[in-house]
Amino acid sequence: MNVAEELQALAETWRTEIPITDAMALVPLSWEDGVLTVAAELAPNVNVHGTAFAGSLYAVAALSGWGSVHLALRAAGIPASIVIAEASIRYRRPVQQRIVARCALGGEVLDAALADLATARGKARIPLQARIEVDGELAAQLDGVYAVRRVDAA
Amino acid sequence: MNVAEELQALAETWRTEIPITDAMALVPLSWEDGVLTVAAELAPNVNVHGTAFAGSLYAVAALSGWGSVHLALRAAGIPASIVIAEASIRYRRPVQQRIVARCALGGEVLDAALADLATARGKARIPLQARIEVDGELAAQLDGVYAVRRVDAA
Repeated sequence: MNVAEELQALAETWRTEIPITDAMALVPLSWEDGVLTVAAELAPNVNVHGTAFAGSLYAVAALSGWGSVHLALRAAGIPASIVIAEASIRYRRPVQQRIVARCALGGEVLDAALADLATARGKARIPLQARIEVDGELAAQLDGVYAVRRVDAA
Repeated sequence: MNVAEELQALAETWRTEIPITDAMALVPLSWEDGVLTVAAELAPNVNVHGTAFAGSLYAVAALSGWGSVHLALRAAGIPASIVIAEASIRYRRPVQQRIVARCALGGEVLDAALADLATARGKARIPLQARIEVDGELAAQLDGVYAVRRVDAA
């Protein structure tokens, strides 16, 4: 899989099919060793305090998870529909710079999901954690569950 | 308090100080008996499935809570800084129309917050629930905790 091309395609999908991400200036930056890094500029995402809007922090974190699942399944050659089913987020400190979220998907969590998707039912629920850091300190943490359905499944 | 003027001022605050809400076409609609109703148009908030983006649903719900606190404290004459500290959201069904969120704040929860804000510390944590419904059915529910600090406090 050509990662640069996949990231470009993901950016285009978000920009055109989730238009609010274009207003947020939200883009995927890199995908290395199963870790997707996503960023959004601060200016379009500020709140009344001049720091990053809580809703934007959530969206950036949630899409780092969605993108991680998307890329892992693309790499595995599995066409799938992905939605976030539930999530919790804790805000630890304000973000006063570009919002950067990271999400890792691999190992046993990915193996279990691929096994579930390979069954006749073709469904999986994937728990993921996304982190937004500022200068190496945790600023926000999202724990989400993504519901995945193989689209070629019955 | 003139509710229509307060809603107009709140709309203006969101539009100018949280610019992504302008891109979302997110506005406060009404505030009656402590229930704030907030809405956003579907078109700018769609996702790859053509339904409302999970991040937009979160933002609309979270701001219905923030606005509820803001208006309740305006009515009580307490200038305060309000931030969402943590939240959980569950998505129950897709939203294929205008996103409408409602949040109620009153009774014991509001009384407890006002009592906490009246102390020398001038801080309160307010648990709130926001609901997004479609045709009378729950589509998403957010449980948030808002951290409030009296701005005239030491």
